[in-house]
Amino acid sequence: MFDIIRTARVVLGVRDLERSRHFYEDALGFVLTEKDDRHLYFRGLEERHHHSLVLKQAEEPYVEAIGFKVRSEDDLDALHRHFTDQGLRTRWLHEGTQRAVGRALRVEDPSGIIVEYFAQMERVERKLQNFDEYRGARMQRIDHFNCLVPDVQKAYDAYTQTLGFACSEYTTTKDGALWAAWLHRKPNVHDIAFMNSEGPRLHHIGFWAIDAMSIIHACDVLASLGYAQNIERGPGRHGLSNAFFLYLRDPDGHRIELYTGDYLTSDPDFEPIRWDIDDPRRQTFWGHAAPDVWFNEASSFKTLDGDGLVAKKPAKLEKLKPEFAI
Amino acid sequence: MFDIIRTARVVLGVRDLERSRHFYEDALGFVLTEKDDRHLYFRGLEERHHHSLVLKQAEEPYVEAIGFKVRSEDDLDALHRHFTDQGLRTRWLHEGTQRAVGRALRVEDPSGIIVEYFAQMERVERKLQNFDEYRGARMQRIDHFNCLVPDVQKAYDAYTQTLGFACSEYTTTKDGALWAAWLHRKPNVHDIAFMNSEGPRLHHIGFWAIDAMSIIHACDVLASLGYAQNIERGPGRHGLSNAFFLYLRDPDGHRIELYTGDYLTSDPDFEPIRWDIDDPRRQTFWGHAAPDVWFNEASSFKTLDGDGLVAKKPAKLEKLKPEFAI
Amino acid sequence: MFDIIRTARVVLGVRDLERSRHFYEDALGFVLTEKDDRHLYFRGLEERHHHSLVLKQAEEPYVEAIGFKVRSEDDLDALHRHFTDQGLRTRWLHEGTQRAVGRALRVEDPSGIIVEYFAQMERVERKLQNFDEYRGARMQRIDHFNCLVPDVQKAYDAYTQTLGFACSEYTTTKDGALWAAWLHRKPNVHDIAFMNSEGPRLHHIGFWAIDAMSIIHACDVLASLGYAQNIERGPGRHGLSNAFFLYLRDPDGHRIELYTGDYLTSDPDFEPIRWDIDDPRRQTFWGHAAPDVWFNEASSFKTLDGDGLVAKKPAKLEKLKPEFAI
Amino acid sequence: MFDIIRTARVVLGVRDLERSRHFYEDALGFVLTEKDDRHLYFRGLEERHHHSLVLKQAEEPYVEAIGFKVRSEDDLDALHRHFTDQGLRTRWLHEGTQRAVGRALRVEDPSGIIVEYFAQMERVERKLQNFDEYRGARMQRIDHFNCLVPDVQKAYDAYTQTLGFACSEYTTTKDGALWAAWLHRKPNVHDIAFMNSEGPRLHHIGFWAIDAMSIIHACDVLASLGYAQNIERGPGRHGLSNAFFLYLRDPDGHRIELYTGDYLTSDPDFEPIRWDIDDPRRQTFWGHAAPDVWFNEASSFKTLDGDGLVAKKPAKLEKLKPEFAI
Repeated sequence: MFDIIRTARVVLGVRDLERSRHFYEDALGFVLTEKDDRHLYFRGLEERHHHSLVLKQAEEPYVEAIGFKVRSEDDLDALHRHFTDQGLRTRWLHEGTQRAVGRALRVEDPSGIIVEYFAQMERVERKLQNFDEYRGARMQRIDHFNCLVPDVQKAYDAYTQTLGFACSEYTTTKDGALWAAWLHRKPNVHDIAFMNSEGPRLHHIGFWAIDAMSIIHACDVLASLGYAQNIERGPGRHGLSNAFFLYLRDPDGHRIELYTGDYLTSDPDFEPIRWDIDDPRRQTFWGHAAPDVWFNEASSFKTLDGDGLVAKKPAKLEKLKPEFAI
Repeated sequence: MFDIIRTARVVLGVRDLERSRHFYEDALGFVLTEKDDRHLYFRGLEERHHHSLVLKQAEEPYVEAIGFKVRSEDDLDALHRHFTDQGLRTRWLHEGTQRAVGRALRVEDPSGIIVEYFAQMERVERKLQNFDEYRGARMQRIDHFNCLVPDVQKAYDAYTQTLGFACSEYTTTKDGALWAAWLHRKPNVHDIAFMNSEGPRLHHIGFWAIDAMSIIHACDVLASLGYAQNIERGPGRHGLSNAFFLYLRDPDGHRIELYTGDYLTSDPDFEPIRWDIDDPRRQTFWGHAAPDVWFNEASSFKTLDGDGLVAKKPAKLEKLKPEFAI
Repeated sequence: MFDIIRTARVVLGVRDLERSRHFYEDALGFVLTEKDDRHLYFRGLEERHHHSLVLKQAEEPYVEAIGFKVRSEDDLDALHRHFTDQGLRTRWLHEGTQRAVGRALRVEDPSGIIVEYFAQMERVERKLQNFDEYRGARMQRIDHFNCLVPDVQKAYDAYTQTLGFACSEYTTTKDGALWAAWLHRKPNVHDIAFMNSEGPRLHHIGFWAIDAMSIIHACDVLASLGYAQNIERGPGRHGLSNAFFLYLRDPDGHRIELYTGDYLTSDPDFEPIRWDIDDPRRQTFWGHAAPDVWFNEASSFKTLDGDGLVAKKPAKLEKLKPEFAI
Repeated sequence: MFDIIRTARVVLGVRDLERSRHFYEDALGFVLTEKDDRHLYFRGLEERHHHSLVLKQAEEPYVEAIGFKVRSEDDLDALHRHFTDQGLRTRWLHEGTQRAVGRALRVEDPSGIIVEYFAQMERVERKLQNFDEYRGARMQRIDHFNCLVPDVQKAYDAYTQTLGFACSEYTTTKDGALWAAWLHRKPNVHDIAFMNSEGPRLHHIGFWAIDAMSIIHACDVLASLGYAQNIERGPGRHGLSNAFFLYLRDPDGHRIELYTGDYLTSDPDFEPIRWDIDDPRRQTFWGHAAPDVWFNEASSFKTLDGDGLVAKKPAKLEKLKPEFAI
């Protein structure tokens, strides 16, 4: 078997590195570990790994991969066998191919999402107690991915039955069909969530904030720097997950969630919490509706071979408004 | 002359006292000083006066009066002479007419707003350091009134030229006409604001909250108690006034603002801050639009004689969206 | 092998149940799940288990056991074999012996600490989103135990080499001897810490708070209710763990820590953080000294058989001031 | 008569301007309006005046003057007549003598304190909504002065009977003697406080912070930058004033208070709140004792002519511990 530890990094294509640097470093307070002509490597204040966010110079925005850290190199080989047995397409990126990352295994998962697994990354200084360097949203660490998929039940089965993910919360339709699911390896609400929609697409990347006031301050700083239009939804309290949240669109339209205050899901006998799709408090506990654009727009994945975008399929369940949750 | 001290109390008609008590006391954390069959008397945690909010049993919601505290009994007589000289209709309410309040002078002001002035009110215990009794929004004190009037320039002139109010911030149209104005006697942003609309109507009553987190917590508590639909706008940061805010509708539709974090306006040479009506950061610094209902609905005033509602006149300036600010 | 999930509950002897109820429920905001003539069962707002804190009517204060939740009943048997093989004294408490808890295994660990393991507990309603019931410190969940032991190295070895705990941070003397260590199973800073002192004694039980402002509010509420003298140390920021903290003494002298804001320790290649015992920022990042009483007083364990208190041994390392950390 | 508006600025002598700049600008987040070889001019984020804090290059630390803003130039002349009539020594500083300040009147007040009055100061940009420039303690504005005087009753009489200050709170000894008093012109708790001790000395200058979390963050930033030893007392809640506070010593030993969350004192019939000197909640509501150094050390005033330090007299009331409050 294999031991997937946690959500670890994401690789995004962006059109203007300097514009992105300003947004992530100056406005949101990400730590810029390193940059070169074609890449920016960012991390959060508590992160001791080289990065959790890679931005690559690109013609058009895309997602290259969402990445999980595994326990050991052996886990990568075991995952490779597992995916191959399942008939999934994989690709190895040998050590040295990617800056600061060890050997990496990429796979096109059953929903078409490009997922990367790796065990090792270079270590850097932790900035958690460099409080004088705190800026903007004071980003602490990467927390989770949220993906749009055409068949949530299929994605749920793959991740819970064979990859060891556990479900914390989920949403069902009136007919009892699985509309959305929040799954975790590390014991908080999620490392990855799936929501019913045309896909595969990356809906957002969640980053952990210290507390609600850091998120309020982020709104003020974003507005001061002219990024008010990048605030898409919130701040607010999620019913599902209980987290205090803010959704932002980066300069290329990639969606970022500032997220804090969920809860511990360590127990093996944890009973997943079910929400009805029509419960108005599910999305925003305070009853606020999410804007249409939050439901309709998301980032596309580049193919495993990098020769185009992963083809999208229509949602299996009928489109409802709210189409998907959190 | 006369010395108006501050925004002091409001008298509202409501249809169900028990329903209102639950909203103001259990959800918002107002202190219930006293109640009888037909009245509820509320105050904030720091208030040492008997009340700042009176709710009266009524067939239909209305505003009976917005009230200011003046320095002394002599100020009431001086105000009476002043209003009479101006040809405004006034009415005395002798001591004993209203619970806990001394002699009061009511006037239908130049905009048709029913304003009350008084110098004395019974004293009660301050709850500011009874932290174990803090609930919900932890309301501290009444802060301001915001009124819709058909002619803002006329209201502005009356309050600044003859009543001693000073302007902190204001909004103008492209043509330079005065669209809205924030006026104060106590040295923060306002005791009363006027916004261009059909009027006179009371748009909202502002109550001071301790800090932004108290307002966030209020949202959570309101939603827990089933009042999510009463959250009309926010939480957010106003550009104009810089305050962190939340707008609520009480069970009768009266609008309440939780408000905190403006600034000191004590200086006689304070230069009022001008905002352009089209500046997107004026209303919500973070760029969020206010909902239509926030622009269109407000509370009507009962006449000075109590025999009906004050007749409303159309706005003098052409209706724009945003029609009025903050 | 066996899988210990997390810090789960503690059983304390107290002299006056009603006095303790007032402190834990009214002042600190613990949820009282159940009580009878001789017991109080408390839980935090997010906890779905019946309790994490049991108070028993007693002649003198004591600690009956600190408890960890394990994955399954099989883990209990495996632990029993493990402890028996090591020559440690154990005791089974069959299901039904203790309210709401399944079969439990107790052991006198190598330091003399009475530790309990169990896999099952009755489930109750989660109060996390009953924000209107939040009171005082708004306790969320149990987080960790901190124990004084005569030989930290010995305790460290037992927990890391045979029980699967990982070290997040530790303190060494000038000679390189292990003075204190923070060990975890769930991936935050600790489930249990050991500090060099006469022992075994329970120094404190840590409970997770939502954020720093909840802890500030707890101070205000405690003082309002006459518990100012129960605030022993803080609020402040720990250097070690980075947590924002407050130490309280309950009415029987048991020490409680309100704790929030540490970090994720999920990675198998996490490198423990070393602190020098003389680093002034280790205990309180802001440089505040802890009071003597914080160093000298702690709660004694009752023996496994309940016939007295566990005998204490002097600290192996020379007493230093600061004698132990965090 | 004359109208004193508010606490407005202070002029301090410091030994190393660059060292002081680092402390006030980088650590505390004051805005540096201007500097030259011998001066630093600082203001808070909301202040539209050129400065509220002047640091002058000096051989030894001293206080040159504490300054109040008055309504108009005429008020300065009226004050001059008033002080002259009382036999107090005064000194005019003509416009152009001091950077950015109009004509100023200085007086050695009845306690020997050097007080400055002025009506005009140059205007600069307000930084209140430049949230991206917020740093450290995010200082908003100057709030008050706290002075040690040998005869509190005498100082109280002078400020309340002839200068128009009102008392918000005060402390008395067992015999009913006035130990300390908090006096205001602007309607919050104080513009100036007097405490019984050897004097005259300036105990501290209070600056308004946005909220308690800004003060907590200030502690973290100060410690990160190596200023942990400059944190003298707190953070905590004052019983007297209800403010959340932190006391710092700047690199020259001048004491700064970060202060937020008192209340409105606008009403002419406000009844001052009396505290007993032995009430443990008066100084710190949570019961924490202040360190000796907080009681014993304070800054000396330079004479009106600048030829030495103002001679100090012993306290009239017997020295008690706590010697003085807040």
